[in-house]
This record gives sequence, C-alpha cells and structure tokens, in this order.
Amino acid sequence: MTSATSLFSPVEADLALLTDNLKNLVGARHKILYAAAEHLFGAGGKRIRPAIVLLLARATQPDGAITSRHRRLAEITEMIHTASLVHDDVVDESATRRGVPTVHSLFDNRVAVLAGDFLFAQSSWYLANLDNLAVVKLLSRVIMDLAEGEIRQGLKHFDTTLSIDAYLEKSYYKTATLIANSAKAVGVLSNVPEAMAENLYQFGRSLGLAYQVVDDILDFTGSSEVLGKPAGSDLLSGNLTAPVLYAMEEMPYLKALIDRKFSQPDDFEQAIEWVHSSQGIGRSRDLAMHHVEHALDCLGELRPSESRQALEDISKYVLRRLK
Amino acid sequence: MTSATSLFSPVEADLALLTDNLKNLVGARHKILYAAAEHLFGAGGKRIRPAIVLLLARATQPDGAITSRHRRLAEITEMIHTASLVHDDVVDESATRRGVPTVHSLFDNRVAVLAGDFLFAQSSWYLANLDNLAVVKLLSRVIMDLAEGEIRQGLKHFDTTLSIDAYLEKSYYKTATLIANSAKAVGVLSNVPEAMAENLYQFGRSLGLAYQVVDDILDFTGSSEVLGKPAGSDLLSGNLTAPVLYAMEEMPYLKALIDRKFSQPDDFEQAIEWVHSSQGIGRSRDLAMHHVEHALDCLGELRPSESRQALEDISKYVLRRLK
Repeated sequence: MTSATSLFSPVEADLALLTDNLKNLVGARHKILYAAAEHLFGAGGKRIRPAIVLLLARATQPDGAITSRHRRLAEITEMIHTASLVHDDVVDESATRRGVPTVHSLFDNRVAVLAGDFLFAQSSWYLANLDNLAVVKLLSRVIMDLAEGEIRQGLKHFDTTLSIDAYLEKSYYKTATLIANSAKAVGVLSNVPEAMAENLYQFGRSLGLAYQVVDDILDFTGSSEVLGKPAGSDLLSGNLTAPVLYAMEEMPYLKALIDRKFSQPDDFEQAIEWVHSSQGIGRSRDLAMHHVEHALDCLGELRPSESRQALEDISKYVLRRLK
Repeated sequence: MTSATSLFSPVEADLALLTDNLKNLVGARHKILYAAAEHLFGAGGKRIRPAIVLLLARATQPDGAITSRHRRLAEITEMIHTASLVHDDVVDESATRRGVPTVHSLFDNRVAVLAGDFLFAQSSWYLANLDNLAVVKLLSRVIMDLAEGEIRQGLKHFDTTLSIDAYLEKSYYKTATLIANSAKAVGVLSNVPEAMAENLYQFGRSLGLAYQVVDDILDFTGSSEVLGKPAGSDLLSGNLTAPVLYAMEEMPYLKALIDRKFSQPDDFEQAIEWVHSSQGIGRSRDLAMHHVEHALDCLGELRPSESRQALEDISKYVLRRLK
C-alpha cells in the first residue's frame, strides 16, 4: 500500500521548503512560540492541504512551474488549517489529536491562543499581500466558514434530527471549505478560465467531504492505536456522523439511546453494535465513493501531467484508508 | 467636564446603529454567543474607535455624508478591537477589565476563544468585501500588529532595559495601530489625496499613543474605583510604562526592586512611592501632550466642520482624563 506522503513526490522538495518557512516564520521571531512551532510544523505533519495546492499549481501552470504566489498560498492554507486546529483543541479541551498531545495541553491555553491568533493574523497579512482581491475573498470565506463550523458543531451535539445534508454542510464548514477555496484560488492565481476555477473548487469540495466521511467511518472501524483515540469517540461526545445517521434511518430505536446521551448502562456499547450491524457503514462508504468519483471527474479538464496523476492517486487513496 | 460620549454627538445616531448591527451579527445567528455579544456590545462600550472612524468619514466626505463602506469599516474596527480584547483576557487570565467581568470569566475559555475567532473571521470577511485592496492591507496589518504586540508584551515583563522608544513601539502595536490604520482607511475610502491619508494615519497614531500614555499615567494616579483594578497593577505584573521608565532614569536604584520582581517586603510600595516622587509622571504627561498636539496638527488640513471640531475635542479630552 502506497503511503500518503509518497503520493506527493512531484512536490516533495517544495513541501520541505514550505515546512522550513513555516517553522521559521512562527518560531524564529518569537521564542515564546518556538516550541509550539516545532510541534505544529515538525516531522509529524501530513501537509495534505499544501501538497494539493502545490500539485494543483503545477497542474494548472502552462509550464508546470510553481510561482512564488502559489507557494505563499500553500503556506497560507497550512497556517489557517493549523491555527484552526490549535484553537479547536482549546475549545474542545482535547488533550491529544491523532495520538499527539495538543499545544494547549503541552504548553497552556495562553500559548495556544497566542499561537493560533498569530497564525491567523500572519495568514491574513500574507493573503492581503498576494494582491489579488478574488483570492482574498476566497480565503477569508474559509476563515469565516471554519469559525461558523466550530460554533455549529457545539450546537448540534446529540441532535438526532440532524439530516445527512446538514451533516455534509457541517463537514463542508469544518473540512472541505479550506481545500475547495484554496483549490479555486490556485486556479485564480494561474489565470485559468472561470469554468475551470469552478471545477477546481468542486474538486476540493468533494475531496474534502470524502475525506471527512472516511474519517467518520474510521471512528467506528479503526483501532484505537491507528485513531489515536478510543473508537466511537465522536458518537460518545454527541457528534453524529454519517454511519450513525444512516443507522438511525434503519433502526429508529437507536435514537432513544442517543437522545438520553447514553445515560443507561451499556447504552453506548449497544449503539456501537447497532451501527455495525446496520447498513450505516456501507452506505457511508458509498457516500465517500460518490464524492471521490466527482472529485476525479473535476480533474478531467486538466492536461495530463505527473501532478494531475498524483492528484488522482490522492483522491483514490482517500478510499484506500478504509481497507 | 464633558463626558466622553457627548463628544460623539455628530455621529450619535450612527453609533447606535452600529451597536445594533454588531449585537445582531454575533448574537442573533448564534445563541451560544448571544450572551457574550450582549456583554461585549452592550451598554458599557465606549465605542471610541468607531466614533473616530465615523467622524473622520464625515470630515473627509465632500458632502459630509457617511457611506455604507465607511459604516462597515467602523464595524470592522470595533470587531477587531473587541476580538483582541477577548483573546487578550484569556491570555492574561484577567478576571475583569475596567471593573467589568471578562467573557472568559463570565462564561469560559471556550466561549471566549470562539467569540474572538468569530469576530476576527467576520471582520476579515467584511474587509474582503469592501473590495478595496489598500484597505484590506491596512486592516490586516492591524490584525498582525495586535498579535505581535500581545506576544511582545509577554516577552518584555520586568525588563528594566526597556527604552522609552521601545515602550512607544509596544504601545503602537497594542493600541495605536488600529486607530492609525483605520483612520488612513477612512481616507482611502473617501478618495483623499495620498498626503492627506498619511496625515490621517499620523493623527490616529499620535492620538492612540497619547491615549495609551494617559492610561499608563492613570494606572499610578487613578483611584481603584475609577480604574476598576488596584492602582499600580501594570507595574506589579511587570508591564513597565512611561512613568516608571522615566523614574528609573532619575533613580537607577529603582531598577533593583523591579529586577527582583518586588520579592522583598515593601518593595512594591517603595517603587510606587519613588515613581510619585520622581519626574516620571510629569514627563509622561508632557509626552502625552506632545502626541496630542501632533494629532491636532494633523487635523489641520481638514475643512472646518462640526465633525472636525469633535475630533479636536476628543484629542484634547484625552489629556483631560488626567485632571
């Protein structure tokens, strides 16, 4: 099985440069944030978002060359993503993320809030200096969506009336908006025609949604070691995702357990069992597959290149995480 | 003595509208933030920054009429200011601000981080939609400066080598940048000549610095009731301001007390006494006066109007707070 990072080979050197830049940006100027920067942009980062931005840059530029503005956009994308993670972890009081301690638990709330604010601030400054109002709008929309998503997430806990559409909308705000709007911004910076820019947006949106659905399936099917958290922890915290929403359609009695927030003995174990015995996971896999296919379709207009191939492989890899 | 708010009479109705808009923006869409919005934009707010933006709008528009983009700019200014206060209070773990409980103490860190992020996000979205790249740059610079200022503040505690220039630079990042850049942005939106826009920037910068110096004097001379915190609390927390920096020039032995962080009995009381018996407060007053005079000079090019008069009165009022 191909590892996620080997998929990035056409932009591997570019990603190494990006990581160095991000570490220096945050850590070098402010020793108070140095350790946080090492932690955030250190060896562990998957850098999927900037990799997609850089691959799309190569795939859309006539000569396949990444411009300095594309590089800056990739940095902005990773900064916004990281800032929102750091603040989400404060808001959710999470001690770990994918098995790694969070900034606010390693350091404190103070450093986490400062580091997040600094990254948001720096990204809005970089953004303004790309000197492209359309790109500014796309990325400020992302910042807005992420804040909106985090607030909505807090409101919808244990809400058994949540529809699949509302779940996908929530996932858009939480995950897909950043890839979708960054992908479109790459197109704007590469001066692609409007229809192509819209295709890139749809590519990012579908890929982001598929990624989130797969993540939500893995919360039920993955092992604690791979997840870095106990299986079913989304459900336990009241965050209702595709597998359980589909399961509820089939087994309305599942709702009662969730409505009472698993307050009776064995409620939670029973709920997990029902989800597994329902079509919930299979239907969620179909949903993810549908979005991956749409993402692949959206790449169809790009000229054939190593980078386009990598983007297709990344899209397919999203489903391979389920195997 | 004129109250601060009566100085705003040419834009009083505009400020009432702004307050309603801000409350609705944050509170109406998100019940989780409703109480925070009421608290942040409720009766207590002084709204000095949006008042200055609105007055400058009237003073720079040929017909004295505020445009919808000026109104939006005033809202953005207040949102950025409020967001930074809310996060600063989390970072500084302050329970009260000017005698009023802070958001994170009234609610919790979670709501405070969310509310601040939402305000920053909304302001960057509004900003992008002003459709003016120059204004986007001015205000993202502010967001950047505020984050930088908060980090620097954390680094410079109990630093007795701090110069008056470094103190003023810190005060610029913390306070003056928002008024300075917003004032210039008003000029850009009103299409004033470049030299006039620069004058507006200088006006805001000087007014902001004067305001901060006066605040720092009041920390020594004000009563606890007026300040809403014990007198000398900046010094106690290691935040060295104009009065103590000047006092140290005269009384180098004051440094020893600060260097050992007031660890001996009566150190703090002794330090306060020395500051009062030095020229520190008088020289700080001169410094504030110098900046107010510069601010007034910068208004000189504006055509005479009720709004210009109000801006002059506000500038002079900054010093009257010391009486």
